[in-house]
Amino acid sequence: MAVTFEVIHKDIAGRVGKLKAGEKQIKTPALLPVVNPHLQIIPPADMKKMGVEGIITNAYIFSKSEEFRNQALERGLHDVLNFDGLIMTDSGSFQMSVYGSVDITNEETLSFQRDIGSDIWVPLDIPTHPDTPREEVIEQMEITMARMKEAKEIFGDDAPISGPVQGAVFEDLRESAGRRVSEMGFTYCPVGAVVPLMESYRYRELVDVIIAAKKGLSAGACVHLFGAGHPSMFALAAACGCDVFDSAAYALYAKDGRYITTSGTLKLDEMSELPCACPICRSHTVEELKKSPEKQKLLAMHNLSVTMAEISRVRAAIQDGTLFELVDERCRAHPKLLDGYRRLLERMGEIELHDRASKRRFFYRGSESCKRPEVTNYHKMVSRITLSPEVLISAGGPVPSRFKEVIEFKPPFGALPYELAETFPAGQAEIPSWDEDMVNCGIRGLKLLFETNPDTKVTISTTEKWKDIFTREFPGFEVFT
Amino acid sequence: MAVTFEVIHKDIAGRVGKLKAGEKQIKTPALLPVVNPHLQIIPPADMKKMGVEGIITNAYIFSKSEEFRNQALERGLHDVLNFDGLIMTDSGSFQMSVYGSVDITNEETLSFQRDIGSDIWVPLDIPTHPDTPREEVIEQMEITMARMKEAKEIFGDDAPISGPVQGAVFEDLRESAGRRVSEMGFTYCPVGAVVPLMESYRYRELVDVIIAAKKGLSAGACVHLFGAGHPSMFALAAACGCDVFDSAAYALYAKDGRYITTSGTLKLDEMSELPCACPICRSHTVEELKKSPEKQKLLAMHNLSVTMAEISRVRAAIQDGTLFELVDERCRAHPKLLDGYRRLLERMGEIELHDRASKRRFFYRGSESCKRPEVTNYHKMVSRITLSPEVLISAGGPVPSRFKEVIEFKPPFGALPYELAETFPAGQAEIPSWDEDMVNCGIRGLKLLFETNPDTKVTISTTEKWKDIFTREFPGFEVFT
Repeated sequence: MAVTFEVIHKDIAGRVGKLKAGEKQIKTPALLPVVNPHLQIIPPADMKKMGVEGIITNAYIFSKSEEFRNQALERGLHDVLNFDGLIMTDSGSFQMSVYGSVDITNEETLSFQRDIGSDIWVPLDIPTHPDTPREEVIEQMEITMARMKEAKEIFGDDAPISGPVQGAVFEDLRESAGRRVSEMGFTYCPVGAVVPLMESYRYRELVDVIIAAKKGLSAGACVHLFGAGHPSMFALAAACGCDVFDSAAYALYAKDGRYITTSGTLKLDEMSELPCACPICRSHTVEELKKSPEKQKLLAMHNLSVTMAEISRVRAAIQDGTLFELVDERCRAHPKLLDGYRRLLERMGEIELHDRASKRRFFYRGSESCKRPEVTNYHKMVSRITLSPEVLISAGGPVPSRFKEVIEFKPPFGALPYELAETFPAGQAEIPSWDEDMVNCGIRGLKLLFETNPDTKVTISTTEKWKDIFTREFPGFEVFT
Repeated sequence: MAVTFEVIHKDIAGRVGKLKAGEKQIKTPALLPVVNPHLQIIPPADMKKMGVEGIITNAYIFSKSEEFRNQALERGLHDVLNFDGLIMTDSGSFQMSVYGSVDITNEETLSFQRDIGSDIWVPLDIPTHPDTPREEVIEQMEITMARMKEAKEIFGDDAPISGPVQGAVFEDLRESAGRRVSEMGFTYCPVGAVVPLMESYRYRELVDVIIAAKKGLSAGACVHLFGAGHPSMFALAAACGCDVFDSAAYALYAKDGRYITTSGTLKLDEMSELPCACPICRSHTVEELKKSPEKQKLLAMHNLSVTMAEISRVRAAIQDGTLFELVDERCRAHPKLLDGYRRLLERMGEIELHDRASKRRFFYRGSESCKRPEVTNYHKMVSRITLSPEVLISAGGPVPSRFKEVIEFKPPFGALPYELAETFPAGQAEIPSWDEDMVNCGIRGLKLLFETNPDTKVTISTTEKWKDIFTREFPGFEVFT
């Protein structure tokens, strides 16, 4: 019965994994579409045909529904929703965050989730709003902790109960919450109450919150980012270490006439084209879609198709070792996402133990690429090399035969000795024509190397364009063109 | 019968337009899939259901085919291919570029294209390889020009004949070829023989070649980039002013087991996921696709779906005024595309007369955004403002009430006076937390403003993080935090 998680591939702090809950198994990163039993705009059986392996529904809605409560208790959730994949249930915490309170206890909701046959249960945690004062956050966190402890005591260690990590925007609280949840033995850990951050584009803080929670959680925990959401941020969140997402956006946005893309959301009414490869967009003109009596359903299907496709793309990128490329691509779609991406780069030192050592390739995508850990680690690694008494650094200029040791300058890495020419990252890096940020970064790498080889006589051969910068940065060396 | 082209929306040098050839009309930018009558992997009628409005086929293949020659002459091309949209025909020039020569004359191929009912004909131009020596390029260009002149003389001014622009990588030759083609009255103008540039990722030169041809061509010419190709470069080519693309890639790549994405091509055998929203990818697992007896056809359908979706996206971006965002997104997919994008930014001064003055928004996407013409033009425009004798530049620091004129510093633009706060671009720019490139660019804008207001006393209020840079750049002004 217990929830288990197996990591298969890693990239940055992202993972491709297998999540098992009882008999059910899904690939991660995964997106669980939110299903409201009262409004099944896309029936779960149709979702399955679109590649959906798991869904999430709300046990609180079931428990309060005259129509569905007894059906679910008698026939079980999977039969009522006609979905044989993984079904996770939320407890009513979401309703609590919207309405302030719910008339159900922690034990009641968990018993109900068990009785309707849910595969992953959520205790009645308190979703503390990000802007709550610290004292109140601590108070609410303690209630959540007590309820998780109670859940373990009543339902046992093997019950498929998730352990939510709260703490608002206080990093120390998120970290300690993560640590305590892992210590209690929870393996499936939602990071909660981040929707207000995402709604107001506070991606920089979102990155901080996830990294803090991850620092506390055990490395083997499966991390669910509750209420996320929009495909433009899956890559970033996965890079921070999130494994599962859930989303009602496909349906809510469709209700509003909004069309999801991986780089943002458009209003159907303002659109002149359907810029997507999904079956809906390739078989309708934009005018047909606007006028269709089934507009809402068709939009929901489009929205879910692009969302599922993006989850596949995130998994593929992790397996390939190209997740940084995807994060870079997605995060430039909005300046606030770019802030989140840059924050991730700033904090790589804290999470790079999760990263893999070798990847498919290194593509330079702009000055942000200079801050990738592959570059900073290369700088440190190369500085351990012992140079001959005399070397020529070949930075684009001529290479006279009188130099016995010639080392290529490859920005943003710095020195690329012949022996490393076929290795990741510098040897497998594809770069555009040099830019200033890249050259300055490479020079930082060179300086580290020369510091550890203070007796080496260095000459630098470069082009007119870069001569000034080398001369300025290395006043003691001969620089020629 | 004549080919006409109407421009409806503009962005950078890209256009959304209507191309009419006889009775047929298509939206541009358009992608004409290449159809080989012998190998109709996706029947043209099925393409139409995917949103294809026009196709291109090869008149030379028809003319040499025992099976198709007479059919086409008797029933017409549209009936034989079962496609009632626009059909353009190539002349045999492609075969010439591959095999060196063809046994057909210019007049013969044009007559044949007319007789089979093609909507746009191509004369027998000589596709000169980019690396051909200059003398030979000129020689071949003169032959092409003579054939176009001959075509006009024999078939008249109203015949739907296209006027190819050759000239290899010599910009002056491409420009003069463009000018002569427009002077002869051709309105549909393919830029030819660029496939070798694209095959070897020479996107920087490709940008140069297109810009050179555009400089010669009349602004009203519809520009077809012959043999382009891959959806990763449509946005860049459209931004340079290309209106029509043609592609056999969907089919050729499928034959090779290659899977097209907007950020590159993957080998199906190495894939673990199908990261796409198209009907094929959402209804198959990667294993099912690998093992399907219809693999080639299914892959071709996927490839064509993403290609057509990208064309829609380019059109939508032009209409929205967000083409720079799309170019930025696509061109970071490969460092050599990034080179092409940076080249476009370098050369914007030459083509910005085609750009629109106001756009939906300005999203900062990295330091490349500092080089957008909206920024450099804003610098020039703002320097025309007359300042009061004393102003405070508010660059993130406190704003004491003693200053009567306070002007916001908004990088990368520079000064954002209150009166411009709601206008494009600076007022409608969304930027992330400031970075150094952005602040330096904004300071360049400030300097231009202060140069035209030499008697104004300037004080700058900023934060600790940026104090040093303002102090260094404005040694004569008071800078406080």
